Amino acid sequence: MGPRSERSPTLRREMVFSDIEQCNPDAVSGIPGVAGASPRGASWAGRVAGGAPRGRPTPNGNGPGTGAVGHWNNGGMARPVNPPRGMRDFLPADKARREHALGVIRASYAAQGFEEIETPVMEDASRLHSGLGGDNEKLAFGILRRGLSAETVAELAAAGDLEALTDLGLRFDLTVPLARFYASHRAALPNVFKSVQIAPVWRAERPQKGRYRQFVQCDIDIIGEAGIVAEIELITATIDALDALGLTGCAIRINHRAILRGLIASWGVAEAGYERAMITIDKQDKIGVDGVVAELLDLGLIAASDGGAVADSLSGLPDDGWGLLERADDGGVPWLDEAAYRQLHDIRDAVAEVTPGTPLVFSHDLVRGMGYYTGTIFEIQHPELGYSLGGGGRYDGMIGRFLGTDVPAVGFSLGFERIVDLIDVPQGGVADSIVLVYDRDVAPAALLRIKQELLRRGARVRVERRAKNLKPVLERLAEAGYGRFATVTRQTRDASALEFRPLG
Amino acid sequence: MGPRSERSPTLRREMVFSDIEQCNPDAVSGIPGVAGASPRGASWAGRVAGGAPRGRPTPNGNGPGTGAVGHWNNGGMARPVNPPRGMRDFLPADKARREHALGVIRASYAAQGFEEIETPVMEDASRLHSGLGGDNEKLAFGILRRGLSAETVAELAAAGDLEALTDLGLRFDLTVPLARFYASHRAALPNVFKSVQIAPVWRAERPQKGRYRQFVQCDIDIIGEAGIVAEIELITATIDALDALGLTGCAIRINHRAILRGLIASWGVAEAGYERAMITIDKQDKIGVDGVVAELLDLGLIAASDGGAVADSLSGLPDDGWGLLERADDGGVPWLDEAAYRQLHDIRDAVAEVTPGTPLVFSHDLVRGMGYYTGTIFEIQHPELGYSLGGGGRYDGMIGRFLGTDVPAVGFSLGFERIVDLIDVPQGGVADSIVLVYDRDVAPAALLRIKQELLRRGARVRVERRAKNLKPVLERLAEAGYGRFATVTRQTRDASALEFRPLG
Repeated sequence: MGPRSERSPTLRREMVFSDIEQCNPDAVSGIPGVAGASPRGASWAGRVAGGAPRGRPTPNGNGPGTGAVGHWNNGGMARPVNPPRGMRDFLPADKARREHALGVIRASYAAQGFEEIETPVMEDASRLHSGLGGDNEKLAFGILRRGLSAETVAELAAAGDLEALTDLGLRFDLTVPLARFYASHRAALPNVFKSVQIAPVWRAERPQKGRYRQFVQCDIDIIGEAGIVAEIELITATIDALDALGLTGCAIRINHRAILRGLIASWGVAEAGYERAMITIDKQDKIGVDGVVAELLDLGLIAASDGGAVADSLSGLPDDGWGLLERADDGGVPWLDEAAYRQLHDIRDAVAEVTPGTPLVFSHDLVRGMGYYTGTIFEIQHPELGYSLGGGGRYDGMIGRFLGTDVPAVGFSLGFERIVDLIDVPQGGVADSIVLVYDRDVAPAALLRIKQELLRRGARVRVERRAKNLKPVLERLAEAGYGRFATVTRQTRDASALEFRPLG
Repeated sequence: MGPRSERSPTLRREMVFSDIEQCNPDAVSGIPGVAGASPRGASWAGRVAGGAPRGRPTPNGNGPGTGAVGHWNNGGMARPVNPPRGMRDFLPADKARREHALGVIRASYAAQGFEEIETPVMEDASRLHSGLGGDNEKLAFGILRRGLSAETVAELAAAGDLEALTDLGLRFDLTVPLARFYASHRAALPNVFKSVQIAPVWRAERPQKGRYRQFVQCDIDIIGEAGIVAEIELITATIDALDALGLTGCAIRINHRAILRGLIASWGVAEAGYERAMITIDKQDKIGVDGVVAELLDLGLIAASDGGAVADSLSGLPDDGWGLLERADDGGVPWLDEAAYRQLHDIRDAVAEVTPGTPLVFSHDLVRGMGYYTGTIFEIQHPELGYSLGGGGRYDGMIGRFLGTDVPAVGFSLGFERIVDLIDVPQGGVADSIVLVYDRDVAPAALLRIKQELLRRGARVRVERRAKNLKPVLERLAEAGYGRFATVTRQTRDASALEFRPLG
């Protein structure tokens, strides 16, 4: 039994997932009496999500509570049952792996002085759609208003106001709820509030490998601290958490929105085009420098004559990016915001002193998608994987949108779903795990009294009725961390009479 | 500082909650251009939930992603921001209390050999509304289909088919998702599957003290075991969990649906009326025996001439209910299903042997609301409180509705929200909790290096910039479990130079 042998359910799960994926994502069936319902066209995700895949039978006219089960379980033969599209069940081994990772992260951040909070999974729809969530706003699941009449719905449809069908939505990240939470409770919170949030978020994206519609985020944020001590504490706390998870060898990429804006301005892009240009730069690892230049030209953000200079400024940096000020001699880097760059140096030096071994790399093309970032931005780079394991940045303007007065803020988010697949889970965490195999004729009271005896000694105990083929049962329990077993017969009086044998 | 002093945020939270409650729950405002939208009338909960309270501004015509924040934060003065109606934020002290309780419950059930699983918060709407959830089905929050066009919505409204607006819903309990999970994954699960689920559920009920729209349930279930060893293991595991939480003095009320059916049949109620009669009996602790008789008469379920006999059979039992078979001499208890009653005796005797000290009380009028129960039903009775702390029962028919073949099942659910308010949280769980108060001119690298030194020694460390009035800051941290503090100045070289003083 290898250290990762408990992960086989994951593989099976992905097979189920593939089955789901083969459904036509553009089908808008499943709405009785409505053919070819056309999506709003606001986003591809909305279109994809509009489908009703998997041959699920359509809702019928039965009111709730009528006991009408037959419409999806008819003829005695149950239809296949899966979790909703893009969402996952976690079997015991998967769940144990996730709880282990969550426990490590929670303990690490608590030791660092962060305090955990929780908000409801829903927020008012108007808050979720306030422009702070960027493209993610389009991916929010909306909650249908309760008590709507057909007349009201008809009037809303006639007015084209479908947004009024929902009053609440599921959060798509933990940052918007945190800003709302801070505004709700500021009087009860310390001046500098250091929070941890570990919770699921939901996005109606096209499901694909490693991208789900329900996934967990782990955020730490410092609200109320304008100085770089906040960035340094967040980055070193994150490095500590990665260490505690056994994820070594990562680097932190860092940039500053002021530097990014200076770079884009140097290309002659007007300020109104900055945000759009950033989206293009963000794709550089996928489309290359040439692709970025081509897209900026297509968008009309740069002039054709500037293409070469743009390509040069994107590709002409040393590997770790820290020598730019020294290049002043040979013409320098004219677009560089020197104050911001020196701040990044200070952060780099402090992180190297506090948590040596995890390098900070200046990446002038690092963007981080969200529009609310105002200063430093950073990202965890895994040594081998092509994607980041988390990231964050400073968003000094956001809290003020909820509170009315500006409060500085900076956060760092771990990509939990990616991390949980990378870690090794230590086996045998539980002290003494015992299986009691019992014969069918053992009295329940006698069996469970013996179990209780062992529990009182601090053991984990599972009772298991003797099966015809006991071997696979015991193998499965060995994988679940049980270390030994004993048989209980009608003659077994108490725990002292048990004869233990090793498992696995 | 008393042991419960950390709970003041709860009080503040309840004040906020009261504010919300004062809004007119029947107002269906907030839908622009629609006056007096009439609720469907299916349930009072639907009507209440239809309101748009708290003066929340109405959704406007701005598309998502336009950056339109101003419509709810206009004129520079932010509106009050609260979590959605009936849902709660948890501040650090509340969250720590909850995590403590969850940790105790999780460890207790794991030791008992139960395995934790997780399902997505959403299920297909058709599964949630399959008749298995009873009245709770009406309370499910529905997820609006993605990509609906105004034309589609208009057609659905014209057809009166509002249910087709949603394809998914938030789970209202953990039992329906468990049955779906078991059907999805049966091949990967052991023949007797013992599960733990600890997760939030949602119900659009009228919020009131102690009743929320998002709340956590803790369920253990045994699927695949028809014998009473399952009931005994669930009940003793629950008693152990209550013990671990420090909740002593509880009793378990127990009954059997066969006994209840026998009782109701003895009143001359036709079988089609059993379910309705049970709902009435369930109110006995609120409306008394006379109230139950009156309601049964009103409903036409019993004849006026039988009223006296009904009242006698409801009130004429000994206190702990266990002596009924001995009464055979003086006419006996003719409605009693003796086989079921003897089974309850066996459960009682076994529980007394395994976990003495928590009595089982036979309650022939215990109903437990859900229609899916088929056999034993039970409930935790707190010695002082007027409400139960959890309950469960056998639901042998339910899995078959999802799977196509019958599988026996029995479950026990803890009322987490009630329990978490009753427990005492041990203080100072974290080994050595240190606050480092630092002067503004201390270099961040030096400060955080000292923090790191202390972390490496196993301490929990929080850095706190010196404030004008440090006292309330330190008091708050003492309540959060920090035990001592030291000051870091520009002269502090390392942790050995710190002078610690006790906190609190």
